[in-house]
Amino acid sequence: MKFENITKTVSTVDSFLASRLRGEPRELYSAASYLIEHGGKRLRPYMVIKSCQIVGGNKKQAMAAAAAVEMVHNFTLVHDDIMDNDEMRHGVPTVHMRFGMPVGILAGDLLFSRAFETISNPYFGKTASIGLNLVSTLAKACTDVCEGQTLDINMAKSSKIPSEDQYIKMIEKKTSSLFVASCAMGAISADKNDADVKRLSTFGRNLGIAFQIIDDLIGVTGDPKITKKPVGNDIREGKKSLPILMAIKKASKQERRIILKAFGNHTASKTEVQKAVSTIAALGIESAIKHKALQHSNVAKKSISTYNGTAKNELLSLLDFVVERSL
Amino acid sequence: MKFENITKTVSTVDSFLASRLRGEPRELYSAASYLIEHGGKRLRPYMVIKSCQIVGGNKKQAMAAAAAVEMVHNFTLVHDDIMDNDEMRHGVPTVHMRFGMPVGILAGDLLFSRAFETISNPYFGKTASIGLNLVSTLAKACTDVCEGQTLDINMAKSSKIPSEDQYIKMIEKKTSSLFVASCAMGAISADKNDADVKRLSTFGRNLGIAFQIIDDLIGVTGDPKITKKPVGNDIREGKKSLPILMAIKKASKQERRIILKAFGNHTASKTEVQKAVSTIAALGIESAIKHKALQHSNVAKKSISTYNGTAKNELLSLLDFVVERSL
Repeated sequence: MKFENITKTVSTVDSFLASRLRGEPRELYSAASYLIEHGGKRLRPYMVIKSCQIVGGNKKQAMAAAAAVEMVHNFTLVHDDIMDNDEMRHGVPTVHMRFGMPVGILAGDLLFSRAFETISNPYFGKTASIGLNLVSTLAKACTDVCEGQTLDINMAKSSKIPSEDQYIKMIEKKTSSLFVASCAMGAISADKNDADVKRLSTFGRNLGIAFQIIDDLIGVTGDPKITKKPVGNDIREGKKSLPILMAIKKASKQERRIILKAFGNHTASKTEVQKAVSTIAALGIESAIKHKALQHSNVAKKSISTYNGTAKNELLSLLDFVVERSL
Repeated sequence: MKFENITKTVSTVDSFLASRLRGEPRELYSAASYLIEHGGKRLRPYMVIKSCQIVGGNKKQAMAAAAAVEMVHNFTLVHDDIMDNDEMRHGVPTVHMRFGMPVGILAGDLLFSRAFETISNPYFGKTASIGLNLVSTLAKACTDVCEGQTLDINMAKSSKIPSEDQYIKMIEKKTSSLFVASCAMGAISADKNDADVKRLSTFGRNLGIAFQIIDDLIGVTGDPKITKKPVGNDIREGKKSLPILMAIKKASKQERRIILKAFGNHTASKTEVQKAVSTIAALGIESAIKHKALQHSNVAKKSISTYNGTAKNELLSLLDFVVERSL
């Protein structure tokens, strides 16, 4: 799986996106397109397009949905950064740092409304029934993301370590739901219903879970040169992600003490964090997470086994990339 | 125009709204329904219903749109309060004060997504074409609100006093657009198009402008007993609203000095603010604003002159109430 493949496929989405984010006051539209212009892998629009093609549709049919999904994804990033008070993303200041908090909130809201304007616009060649199905699918996903975010906030605030099930439920809502919507909206854009939408939703859900847990693994054991974050960043931040949950569950009393000494401890020394990372590594968490990601990857693979053709192979390559990536 | 009339009409909307805002995590749904439960005049859902009835539709047909518009209205209030860092609304703490800023942002986002879920839900008895038209109308209004909010922020930051035209353009986007959408969505819900939607949009736009400029007048000259805010609150806050713009334009050098001494000056004494209020009153601004509101009210009246029946009379009463109210 090469990034160039995605880049090439989504270049028309990027132009379309830019055309949908022009307007006045300029400051608002600059803030709304700022993150999109400064990076992002465009996984979701790519998945919309490939899910449309796999059921016999074409890229043009998928365009409105692809752009809408990317706008919604960026809307969640902009608001997330405000909630977490994060200062940097994609190597540049976050939207609220660059444009101020009020315009940051409004830029997120604008991305949201423009997404729904785009998929409900009859000029983009869809029937009313397709359009309404896209709206309903995307709106449901946005609700899921809000619910997942709240679960995440509650999990972070709680003094308890969540169970693996609670954690998976949270990332299904917070992360997977937009991957589910991407795949479903691809099939809907090609005027497919029910069976195809269901198959592709299963693909998106499992790819999404695999994506998030590998992301979590990188946050704990990732190479600082690649992640551009300090070693064991998520340990120091106290992020209750799957590697940590698994490690704490599996650890001996002594190992747990080492991990918890660095966990959520912003004054922990580099050595203490490094020791926690080594302890987690020695517990075999890396291979346990990779095994779990592979399980979801296999469910995803199976869900599209009835299809053939280029788009199928591209979705399978994307799946491999997601599981095998180091960033 | 009596409030009871609105209250009676919208009681079914309130039950429907409550049913659309149930879910887990409970904290998120409580935060999203919090403001709705603690007040609000329900002008917008009332206008959706009456605009549906005036063109021959019924209340049931208008229900989804009425609920969606109220959710979007509350979404804008929740996010506004965060942007302005306001602590109280409807006599209770604002959502972010009560539930924290992150859940406040998410509650606003949830109201947004639930609004679009509601109007795109085929179970609420609309054709796909009506549903998509509702979505497109509401999404456009949300974009307008974001643009209007940004214009308002820019106006507040600027050292210049805006022109009357700039001000009207701002409130058309920020306030009127959701009234326009309410009336348009009422007609669309009754499966009416073009001519009816256009007439009712004109009604909503002009009612909205009249509503906002009367609101601004109350903010400057309103009776503290009724507004529950200090005398001349908007003067002290430095709000560049229409009464101020008109007064500054009309004032002599000496009068302008008195007004500007209190304007945006949080350390101004009560006497200084009172002097500014009296100066504005002596300039005849109250009657000038009321005259302007009446002009818009007349345009609104004319726009629905071709209709007959109870709903028409109720919309006309609403218009009179908006222009004549003291709160």
